[in-house]
Amino acid sequence: MSSNYIRIFDTSLRDGEQAPGASMTSAEKLEVARALARLGVDVIEAGFPAASPDDLAAVQAIAAEVGQTPVEGRPQAEPPIVCGLARCTRNDIQTAWEGVKGAKHPRIHTFLATSDIHLQHKLRMTRPEVVARATEMVAFAKSLCADVEFSPEDAGRSDPEFLYEVLAAVIKAGATTLNIPDTVGYTLPDEFGALIAGIIKNTPGAKDVIISVHCHDDLGLAVANSLAGLRAGARQAEVTVNGIGERAGNASLEELVMALRTRADKLGLQTGIDAKQLCRVSKLISRTTSYPVPPNKAIVGANAFAHESGIHQDGMIKNAQTYEIMRPEDVGATQTTLVLGKHSGRNAVSKRLAELGYPLEGEALARAFAEFKKLADRKKSVHDADLIALASDERTQAPELWTLQDLQVACGTTGLPTATVRLKGPDGKLHVHAAVGTGPVDATYKAIDHIVRTHVQLLEFVVSAVTEGIDALGEVSVRVRQDDQRSSHGHGTDTDIIVASAKAYLAAVNLVLSRQTGAPVHAQKSSVPADQPVS
Amino acid sequence: MSSNYIRIFDTSLRDGEQAPGASMTSAEKLEVARALARLGVDVIEAGFPAASPDDLAAVQAIAAEVGQTPVEGRPQAEPPIVCGLARCTRNDIQTAWEGVKGAKHPRIHTFLATSDIHLQHKLRMTRPEVVARATEMVAFAKSLCADVEFSPEDAGRSDPEFLYEVLAAVIKAGATTLNIPDTVGYTLPDEFGALIAGIIKNTPGAKDVIISVHCHDDLGLAVANSLAGLRAGARQAEVTVNGIGERAGNASLEELVMALRTRADKLGLQTGIDAKQLCRVSKLISRTTSYPVPPNKAIVGANAFAHESGIHQDGMIKNAQTYEIMRPEDVGATQTTLVLGKHSGRNAVSKRLAELGYPLEGEALARAFAEFKKLADRKKSVHDADLIALASDERTQAPELWTLQDLQVACGTTGLPTATVRLKGPDGKLHVHAAVGTGPVDATYKAIDHIVRTHVQLLEFVVSAVTEGIDALGEVSVRVRQDDQRSSHGHGTDTDIIVASAKAYLAAVNLVLSRQTGAPVHAQKSSVPADQPVS
Repeated sequence: MSSNYIRIFDTSLRDGEQAPGASMTSAEKLEVARALARLGVDVIEAGFPAASPDDLAAVQAIAAEVGQTPVEGRPQAEPPIVCGLARCTRNDIQTAWEGVKGAKHPRIHTFLATSDIHLQHKLRMTRPEVVARATEMVAFAKSLCADVEFSPEDAGRSDPEFLYEVLAAVIKAGATTLNIPDTVGYTLPDEFGALIAGIIKNTPGAKDVIISVHCHDDLGLAVANSLAGLRAGARQAEVTVNGIGERAGNASLEELVMALRTRADKLGLQTGIDAKQLCRVSKLISRTTSYPVPPNKAIVGANAFAHESGIHQDGMIKNAQTYEIMRPEDVGATQTTLVLGKHSGRNAVSKRLAELGYPLEGEALARAFAEFKKLADRKKSVHDADLIALASDERTQAPELWTLQDLQVACGTTGLPTATVRLKGPDGKLHVHAAVGTGPVDATYKAIDHIVRTHVQLLEFVVSAVTEGIDALGEVSVRVRQDDQRSSHGHGTDTDIIVASAKAYLAAVNLVLSRQTGAPVHAQKSSVPADQPVS
Repeated sequence: MSSNYIRIFDTSLRDGEQAPGASMTSAEKLEVARALARLGVDVIEAGFPAASPDDLAAVQAIAAEVGQTPVEGRPQAEPPIVCGLARCTRNDIQTAWEGVKGAKHPRIHTFLATSDIHLQHKLRMTRPEVVARATEMVAFAKSLCADVEFSPEDAGRSDPEFLYEVLAAVIKAGATTLNIPDTVGYTLPDEFGALIAGIIKNTPGAKDVIISVHCHDDLGLAVANSLAGLRAGARQAEVTVNGIGERAGNASLEELVMALRTRADKLGLQTGIDAKQLCRVSKLISRTTSYPVPPNKAIVGANAFAHESGIHQDGMIKNAQTYEIMRPEDVGATQTTLVLGKHSGRNAVSKRLAELGYPLEGEALARAFAEFKKLADRKKSVHDADLIALASDERTQAPELWTLQDLQVACGTTGLPTATVRLKGPDGKLHVHAAVGTGPVDATYKAIDHIVRTHVQLLEFVVSAVTEGIDALGEVSVRVRQDDQRSSHGHGTDTDIIVASAKAYLAAVNLVLSRQTGAPVHAQKSSVPADQPVS
């Protein structure tokens, strides 16, 4: 591997999923992992297996499938490394190993804070205790797995001398990657670059391992800090698609990759990412997490390559280089749009779905095709965006305890919006209820609440922006919470925005209910002793 | 003024407004300018007066009102500088002066490209011609206005030696601020810092003027590049709220200001911004431009201060400093929520509106209060978000050529969504039409199209995320375009999402129609000779 090769470690499924409301179902995580592998990431951090049996199962599923599937375009078509996070405890590390061991290239990633503020206020440990614990747990991880990564949490605010000491100890204990997180997004690029340079210079053994950067965007500096670290000698970057993550999120995969590529003249660094897939993967993450991508988002925003002012347009026509440092096609922003219609057959639909990254088969394909026909009856032409909406609906829904049979809505300026809902229950029986609300969506949700007899709090209601004419499929995502549980989300698509709203809400409610019935999965999650932090 | 004081030059109304679909009406621009002045920005770039009579009128209105109104909290309560952009032509500069001269502190900002790629491919001018033109036009601007800013466009890709030559010449001609744009967002922080340092060191006279930075975010580095420039000696930063702007946008005001403030220990720089207003101004810009703020946006995103993982929450409870480098209240993220209801009187509503930044009076207040009463009848408690929606509806609408009288909608799973619309026309007559669509919004828009007899293309349909329960007011923004005109947008609010969609569409259509009838304002815009670029 070239000494200028930067390993892209994607943590959308772990740090990204920690963002409020970004939690994904196991099916969604698997879908994202498949897309990340195709994109060419080197390491997929698939989750935090000790957090809950759900998380463990998702990591196992990803290890078994994505961690074993050859990836075209990668060296020897090797599948990506599948990584699981673990605090520095025997149980966490053992559980992480259970999660990743099914992969061809498994990795355990364990972490412990090293800043005085974390030691005093959270860990309540002394420095020697931290060194001892980190060494012991890295050695234990190494006894299970050859590939071990260690992160000194809050490294950006740690005493460098102590950092060198901890890192040297874990290298001796068998760590092969040292990840340096700026956990609170506090450092400036020159500081972070100096931190990495200092580690490489002063830590015995640092030159024999991979140094990694993990930057947060609280001050808008995550990408700049990551670049500074890579220029100082780090050779792995931990990132998330669309920069999702706790608080202001992580360094954005697409920005970092394109900065490295666009400025290869100066930086001389390269990655294994197939940039042409960036826009598609960005859309997948946005849809799965309900986190919108604003039009002015670098690289993947709808306007990243748009020129509104006449003057810029004029310049673009004369010579694209006057205002463009990347071409839209480099990041997959201009894909051929194959328009399908009511006369398109199952083969054409199946082929296009596969090209879009949704290789549906069997019953799933049959259901998606049936939905396609219904849609094609309603609108003249079916665009890629419609197909993706259909396919992701098919792939990512929660178990259907309650299903929507019928919805009838009357609304308008009269001020008495009314919805009549007919649901089929888990018992197979039909239940009907009509309700009045402040609007048609409120009325629909009230009617569903009445039938389902579950009280959830609506935390968020998001309608995806429509950009291809109002006859397109509308996508609605909702996020709900019951009592103090972790939030659940659901999404629904339909040309009728109220029907889509009903589907989304029902999917979220079904998820809440399935968690209740299928053992208290998420109660366990919050019962994990919260004595150690996550980077 | 302290030598460590950084002037914040906000160009949301100029570079920000160049973002596709972000164009604002004059009323909206005035509202944004008022908010920027209250926020404490030093310079408001109010527009590009030569672009169209509309733009000129908006700049004049801002100069006359905001440019003359004392601002509490600023030194001597001085109003902000009001700036107008001009290409290096006599007509542009004269028109910019017409725009800003009504302000107490007017500024003319003129620009000319200096990179070889722009000289060859767009300007088709030689280097000596560029020096001559820049000098002559800065001198002309100086003859009108004491405060003249000059920008060498695409400075980031210009030959530094030539840059020094041009800049020295315009200083001699009277320029008082030299703004250095990284027009295409191509530079790395160390390069941009070196560029600024080189200019200060090598340009005769540079130490007697203010050097300014203007960075774009194409590689996600706008804030880092701006900081690098300020550390190298620049003392003005050109920014936009939420980082809106052409393509991936400009450096974000809120990120830059909070980076300067949070890292004052290292940077030693300060601004005059009242950070507590950042979240409110961010929301105003988002609403006015229909550009969503993603939850993971630094500083002003909904999750910028949210901690989902149990481990982080635990740390936060033990000591907020473990994971927080800023407090939510520092940026106005946690405002007291005063809940109003049906028994609240006009005074309470008026007072709360003023506190929220909407000092409505007279008829506007009467209309907003009537809307408030209607809303309070429908929902138990009226939140700040609802009030802001009502007030901005009142303040930013286009002329009402067509008004919505009634809307009646039937939709659901039957697949025949039907809308009946009754509009009052410019002639005062009522028109009714019913239409069927793929969904209730499509049906409503078809019915409106039929009555209004104008064909517009729907470019975007955005429903603002709802986060306070589904009985909240829904806000819908749409963007439409007729033929090759500049796009127009409208927004509408109602507890009924379909009614809000109808209001938004009608507002946008009214704007299109008013442009047609009130002289071809925007046709003139595109007829400006596009021979020079905009930074």
